[in-house]
Amino acid sequence: MSKDSNTVYIGQKPTMNYVLAVLTHINTKNAKEVTIKARGQAISAAVDVAEIVNKRFMKELGVSNISIGTEEMPPREGENKYRKVSTIEITMTKQ
Amino acid sequence: MSKDSNTVYIGQKPTMNYVLAVLTHINTKNAKEVTIKARGQAISAAVDVAEIVNKRFMKELGVSNISIGTEEMPPREGENKYRKVSTIEITMTKQ
Repeated sequence: MSKDSNTVYIGQKPTMNYVLAVLTHINTKNAKEVTIKARGQAISAAVDVAEIVNKRFMKELGVSNISIGTEEMPPREGENKYRKVSTIEITMTKQ
Repeated sequence: MSKDSNTVYIGQKPTMNYVLAVLTHINTKNAKEVTIKARGQAISAAVDVAEIVNKRFMKELGVSNISIGTEEMPPREGENKYRKVSTIEITMTKQ
């Protein structure tokens, strides 16, 4: 996943933190588009964020594209195999 | 989520059970398409299933559509509020 300024990365913080990040992004940077990215278990939270933003806060910010993929992650401590982890990218665009 | 025979619902079983379900579906029913559906925490597993099927077992079965949504679920025991739960539908089509 490449870093860029139009992207919100989902981690382990409470869902509402990321909802706020998306809304702030659209409101302060005057962006027309924001991409939500997540890996592994955080994928469910990424979908929650997109749904909460669209249904509860900003109906004009709709999902325009969703793509999924696989990434290789370095082995965990004590293991020696690269792990495959699923990813999701949800693009939301202002209408 | 409506029940239909071209659908694999993701629950809490091991991921490989669902991978097998998708492959069996395509191979035995001679279907050209299968839809993977999941709710809440199982959404991450649904993405894993789609990725494993496509990358490891059946390269010709690609993701043709992904949609997300929200469903209302009945309150848990001891609670009295309906809960909103995110959903995902991943459609895979044989090329």
